[in-house]
Amino acid sequence: MLDALFEPRAIAVVGASTKELSIGNVIIRNLQTYGYRGKIYPVNPTAPEVCGLKAYRTLDEIPGEVDLAHIIIPSRFVPQTVEDCGRKGIKAAIINSAGFCELGEEGARLQEDFLSRAREFGVRIFGPNCQGIINSDPAVRAYCNFTYTYPDPGHISVVALSGGVGSVIMQALADLGIGQRLYASNGNACDISMSEIVRYYGKDQGTKAIILYTEGFANPRAFLEAAREVTAKKPILAMKAGRTEQGAKAASSHTGSLAGVDIATELIFEKTGILSFTDEGEMTRAAMAFATQPIPAGNRVGIITNTGGPAVIATDVLVACGLDVPKLSERSIERLRKSQLPEAALENPIDVVATAGGAQFRGALDVLLEEEGIDSIFINFVTAPFADTHEIARQIVEVNKLSGKPIVCNFLTNLSLEGFRITMRILKEGGIPCYANPSDAARALGALAKYGRLKKRDLGLPEIFADVDAAKARSIVEKAQRAGSSVLAAADVYTIFEAYGIPVAGWGGAATAAEAAAAADRIGYPVVVKVDCAQIDHKSDLGGVAVNLKDAAAVRATVEEMQSRLGSFGRLNFLVQKFLPGGRELIVGATAQRELGHLVMFGLGGIYVEVLKDVVFKIAPVTGPEAREMLTTIKTAPLLDGIRGETGVDREGIVNLVQRVSQLLTDLPMIQEMDMNPIMAFADCVYAVDGRIRI
Amino acid sequence: MLDALFEPRAIAVVGASTKELSIGNVIIRNLQTYGYRGKIYPVNPTAPEVCGLKAYRTLDEIPGEVDLAHIIIPSRFVPQTVEDCGRKGIKAAIINSAGFCELGEEGARLQEDFLSRAREFGVRIFGPNCQGIINSDPAVRAYCNFTYTYPDPGHISVVALSGGVGSVIMQALADLGIGQRLYASNGNACDISMSEIVRYYGKDQGTKAIILYTEGFANPRAFLEAAREVTAKKPILAMKAGRTEQGAKAASSHTGSLAGVDIATELIFEKTGILSFTDEGEMTRAAMAFATQPIPAGNRVGIITNTGGPAVIATDVLVACGLDVPKLSERSIERLRKSQLPEAALENPIDVVATAGGAQFRGALDVLLEEEGIDSIFINFVTAPFADTHEIARQIVEVNKLSGKPIVCNFLTNLSLEGFRITMRILKEGGIPCYANPSDAARALGALAKYGRLKKRDLGLPEIFADVDAAKARSIVEKAQRAGSSVLAAADVYTIFEAYGIPVAGWGGAATAAEAAAAADRIGYPVVVKVDCAQIDHKSDLGGVAVNLKDAAAVRATVEEMQSRLGSFGRLNFLVQKFLPGGRELIVGATAQRELGHLVMFGLGGIYVEVLKDVVFKIAPVTGPEAREMLTTIKTAPLLDGIRGETGVDREGIVNLVQRVSQLLTDLPMIQEMDMNPIMAFADCVYAVDGRIRI
Repeated sequence: MLDALFEPRAIAVVGASTKELSIGNVIIRNLQTYGYRGKIYPVNPTAPEVCGLKAYRTLDEIPGEVDLAHIIIPSRFVPQTVEDCGRKGIKAAIINSAGFCELGEEGARLQEDFLSRAREFGVRIFGPNCQGIINSDPAVRAYCNFTYTYPDPGHISVVALSGGVGSVIMQALADLGIGQRLYASNGNACDISMSEIVRYYGKDQGTKAIILYTEGFANPRAFLEAAREVTAKKPILAMKAGRTEQGAKAASSHTGSLAGVDIATELIFEKTGILSFTDEGEMTRAAMAFATQPIPAGNRVGIITNTGGPAVIATDVLVACGLDVPKLSERSIERLRKSQLPEAALENPIDVVATAGGAQFRGALDVLLEEEGIDSIFINFVTAPFADTHEIARQIVEVNKLSGKPIVCNFLTNLSLEGFRITMRILKEGGIPCYANPSDAARALGALAKYGRLKKRDLGLPEIFADVDAAKARSIVEKAQRAGSSVLAAADVYTIFEAYGIPVAGWGGAATAAEAAAAADRIGYPVVVKVDCAQIDHKSDLGGVAVNLKDAAAVRATVEEMQSRLGSFGRLNFLVQKFLPGGRELIVGATAQRELGHLVMFGLGGIYVEVLKDVVFKIAPVTGPEAREMLTTIKTAPLLDGIRGETGVDREGIVNLVQRVSQLLTDLPMIQEMDMNPIMAFADCVYAVDGRIRI
Repeated sequence: MLDALFEPRAIAVVGASTKELSIGNVIIRNLQTYGYRGKIYPVNPTAPEVCGLKAYRTLDEIPGEVDLAHIIIPSRFVPQTVEDCGRKGIKAAIINSAGFCELGEEGARLQEDFLSRAREFGVRIFGPNCQGIINSDPAVRAYCNFTYTYPDPGHISVVALSGGVGSVIMQALADLGIGQRLYASNGNACDISMSEIVRYYGKDQGTKAIILYTEGFANPRAFLEAAREVTAKKPILAMKAGRTEQGAKAASSHTGSLAGVDIATELIFEKTGILSFTDEGEMTRAAMAFATQPIPAGNRVGIITNTGGPAVIATDVLVACGLDVPKLSERSIERLRKSQLPEAALENPIDVVATAGGAQFRGALDVLLEEEGIDSIFINFVTAPFADTHEIARQIVEVNKLSGKPIVCNFLTNLSLEGFRITMRILKEGGIPCYANPSDAARALGALAKYGRLKKRDLGLPEIFADVDAAKARSIVEKAQRAGSSVLAAADVYTIFEAYGIPVAGWGGAATAAEAAAAADRIGYPVVVKVDCAQIDHKSDLGGVAVNLKDAAAVRATVEEMQSRLGSFGRLNFLVQKFLPGGRELIVGATAQRELGHLVMFGLGGIYVEVLKDVVFKIAPVTGPEAREMLTTIKTAPLLDGIRGETGVDREGIVNLVQRVSQLLTDLPMIQEMDMNPIMAFADCVYAVDGRIRI
């Protein structure tokens, strides 16, 4: 569908210019320099030719068919030009020009204008306010972009919201000596979205891995769906900037569309199995490993080193990345003894020492390749001036050909020396990802291993509980909507919870002291009495909660006292509830996210949420495995198992509750916010003892 | 004192070799290639010349004076050669040979042998099992090393325990295009220590900043003293590897001396104001900024960018590094309006947009230079193909000359294009630190700012409390030593605490139920009774603690019950203590560290220490500001101030207690372990309610 964009057979450049330092000139020269295989038609009202090519005064005058137009003209002329594109039968347009929605109302109006004409004529729009695309396929060689990095063909495709960051990534890949397949930076992204591009990359046979940079998503749900589809086929490495409040502000100022620190993007990455990075350099270096190496079957890495300290650093970083540097089997050590020098350390890391040659490296590589307890190989290779480094490189490359285990190499050398450049070339041409320091190399292997773990996980499907009374819950919410209430009454909240099978501490509503005492008699003592009044939000702070009431007299006295003290707030109702001391306080909450659905939160209550902010989020619907993961990823997770000989809490009860909450949210998307704070968890049961729903 | 090592006027190479791939040949060629200014004397028993130089059969035959010897011969010959060095009047020897203490007992014996001869003759030893040194000073040009990176003269000096990591750092600095001053990698470091080298660098006029890599210190106290002296004069950037258990194991296997994850090294860095890094690449990139830029007066950074996304990433990273990206003053924005293009964003980041030229960059730079609310300048400079990038670079360099504020530049370009290489050269020659991506650049500025904060802090001197009874405490400990006890009795522990003015909950010892009741009467009820018996370590677990006893009868009954139940453990004593419920539980502890002194620990007690490991350490003696910092750097710090309307705890009481503990540890170095767990803290007082001392 995006073929006209990524594989255009002919390109018109509207706004082609004879001025060297102008975009309309740079783009044509880039197409020429990069060796574009199709036809280029400069469009310029006056110049007879641009960059040695015949220019046309209008699109209309172009003799042949055109797939793609670059539009590089003042924004006010863009709508008409888009219409002209449509009339000419052009299928896609890259609008490089700025001056649209990123520049306020007038620009937004212009954008709306050209978009409606584009839709009318079936022209797909890329941009505006964007760089463009690159396709390195030797059959296409389309450099529809004004940047300055000319990628070799390769297997990594890049999509970047920001052209500046796209350039950083493209250049970093080039500096690492690895090629690229497709590149796209779509600026305001008013039509062709990142989701669509990612889907296209997913289907592209030449793309082995995808790098993505964004500052958020206009339509996060659409991206989630696209990403889920694509990650099933190939890895996506992604980075989201605007992680701090000030960063998000900077992002909003240059995109004009997104604002606020959103955690949803990171959660989308997590849910769809996208590898998330916070450093663009680390992301591109990881991509180099993905470009040539297989995914390790597990976390156990064998290290070969001809230098001590870098192996220590690598071990630190590998372990921090969740890898393990296990002991080698006795058999492997026995085999190593035959190939290694006497001063070698036959452990893991295997220190072959600086005087090791190709035979010693090969011996160690063969052992790791065959050792069942090892899933990947990390090499520290310092080019000792007293070793035949070419031969070592050749042995590494040989083993890489045989190997189903990924090999990553920290290649320590001085590339200003010709001899070592040759060694490097042997490694690179042999598909060995080479890094300039141990931490970088270790993190790249860490990324491969993390992806291996992601591929193995099974989040399952959301469980659908059949024992829920969805109609009842819906009718309560709809009644509140009709009444114009945004915060539901406590009784309504508990009724909804019960309709979804969410366990609630025994409760009853009451309008009078007598009703409260009757409810307490029914529930059984001790009880809690809470005031229930739309005007009272923080009822604890106002003395609207009384706990551990042990008989009917205490309940009556409490209600009467609250009536006299709090009556001035409005009509008071009361909630009587079973008092459940001694459990572990938990909190489950949810908030609706624009265009995405709900985020479900879980954590320990009280000071853990208030002081430590020790909570974890998932995007609804939350599956069983996701809910279980929530329980293990909070920092205070050991408290759920009980400490100092306490019994732990009913974990499956919590997992069940979280999934029922998720189903409730999916069924009732009008819920804006919900929380259950606290939930009391015991060894064999959990109960929501306070809840709030805002619609 | 190390002049013979770093500025040798003549060098003998014992083990000089005619074989190209041997260390004894590489070192001579390196000296020649690098242009060593002094005399080189190869020593070889048979060859008449090595690398075109006349060779001598023995040191004795060398006609002139020699300052420094390289020793590259089998380890068993080293002791005699060291003695020969001494007889020849050689002042220092670099022993490259391996085969000493890193290879077990026999090697250790050889090392002891040559060391004693070296001491006898006054020869200082560098190594063994090491690379060597480099001095880039044009008057010296000593490349006493077998590596392959030839540094230009510069202002960064490097000392690395591991030669491999030293090479990584040296090469990274060369790749960044910055020079080096001195380099040293001293392997087993049996004589000349890292402390001594750091002190030498501290005094070296040409060294502006120091990079240090280690895996621990043989004598951490000596290093602490040296580092404190040097950081007062110039920045030390340091990295310690072996941070994980597996990393520490790898370190111990290659150095043969250090083992176990030690946190002491990081604490030494912190106490002495060393900038600590966990990534060698980041450390070298930071050094580039230190080499030419001043230290910012504060944390407020102004960003100039000609590309959107990289400014978002930079902002994220800068903020994460503790920097602030504040709003600009109205006056500055007014001034910007005059110099900037209409589409520029006049905020912070200042987006001058990609079409900006030198005038726009200069306008923005001038504003940030004069803006009082800005301490440093961060530039994102992408080489847009439609801008005069040379002119932009010249303007940045011009402003850098005027500026007392540091400038760091994220220079985004393609250096395979000649034009952009020129732009880069203008920036580099103008002293602008240039980075290839926004995160790297931002972290380098972050390091400058962090150093600025370190320079400003005042840890003060340890307070000496005059109201302590040191003699009493010492006599108790010495008595226990004489008795062969390693764990002090509870009464002794409390007496020591009281001797140091550490508040202890009212207490009394008792051997019988009657004595316990009498003590309780004296202390006042409620009380706690604890069994006190050397054979019972975990008294709580064994039911040896009873709390909240409200009268003498309860005390008597408890003691009698414990006597009958626990009597079989041995002779039982009892400790009666005031019961103090309702405070905040804290923990203070200490452990003795080999060759360093004590580490003092502080944290919240109970689950905070057990589950969250939320504790902080300092090296004794702990000053007042350090103790205060301990209170603010635990993750649960807000709990000390009280939450949900609670009153906070007596912070100065805790600070006082920590300092008194520190003084106690300093006075009684034989204490191996001590803890006060819990300490109960209230709004206006703190009390140790349980304590343990092991000597």
